[in-house]
Amino acid sequence: MENINSSSEGKTFRVRKLELSDKSKGFIELLRQLTVCDSVSDKEFEDRFKEISMYGDDHVICVIEDETSGKIIASGSVFIEKKFIRSCGKVGHIEDVVVDAGARGMQLGKKIVEFLADHAHSMGCYKVILDCSDENKVFYEKCGFKKKEIQMVKYFI
Amino acid sequence: MENINSSSEGKTFRVRKLELSDKSKGFIELLRQLTVCDSVSDKEFEDRFKEISMYGDDHVICVIEDETSGKIIASGSVFIEKKFIRSCGKVGHIEDVVVDAGARGMQLGKKIVEFLADHAHSMGCYKVILDCSDENKVFYEKCGFKKKEIQMVKYFI
Repeated sequence: MENINSSSEGKTFRVRKLELSDKSKGFIELLRQLTVCDSVSDKEFEDRFKEISMYGDDHVICVIEDETSGKIIASGSVFIEKKFIRSCGKVGHIEDVVVDAGARGMQLGKKIVEFLADHAHSMGCYKVILDCSDENKVFYEKCGFKKKEIQMVKYFI
Repeated sequence: MENINSSSEGKTFRVRKLELSDKSKGFIELLRQLTVCDSVSDKEFEDRFKEISMYGDDHVICVIEDETSGKIIASGSVFIEKKFIRSCGKVGHIEDVVVDAGARGMQLGKKIVEFLADHAHSMGCYKVILDCSDENKVFYEKCGFKKKEIQMVKYFI
């Protein structure tokens, strides 16, 4: 009998919220696969972790840990924006979705995005949005997203 | 001598933060020019106003009031997202920029966007981003923005 989980070697992956101890499990190294992320001291990490935690369910960072290696292999975040439009509606903003280069092809990115979108939905958001490159459009379409607008940016550095 | 402010009939327009009393000055009616915005009760408005105020400088809504008519004629918001990437960097997200249809051509939109971008800069953000339609690309380029990514959306309603 074939193992239907062959691509993930029979492993099951659980999405959970970021914990302070994840810094020592390669969380920052994982983010480096996404963009520039210089070394962060334990103090800086703890301070930022506490700042974000203060928002409670309004700003959630989730991760997937490979229980075998003890490494964080996927992550993403969502924050809930409170508006006046749409009768005081709320919008979820997904940011910084990343899967470790060595853990691709196991649908971990989809798991992360679904976790974040479900969270936004449960918080009463009428929609969830994200910005991505053209190359990632197909991936997000598989997650149930559609292209809508364009993103504009102004850098200060 | 010509009046260089002729387009605005000599009026000067000041950008200030949203106040609770702006509901009675047509703030919700202005937002309706942007998107769906059903009527909001005074209680709902006050509750949402307080929720947003709790974020202090991390979520600012600004407006321009026409001092002659006592009406809010332009608005926009920015919130500051705290990240781990970019060495615990911050990003400003501009949302819901709108100028009253009867007050176009006086650079009020530019004033609003500059106020919001300056705020993000002063809060230590390394960049400020926003999503817009293709039609508004030129306007935001005049405000110093460049097109970067695409926006994807998933609706829950």
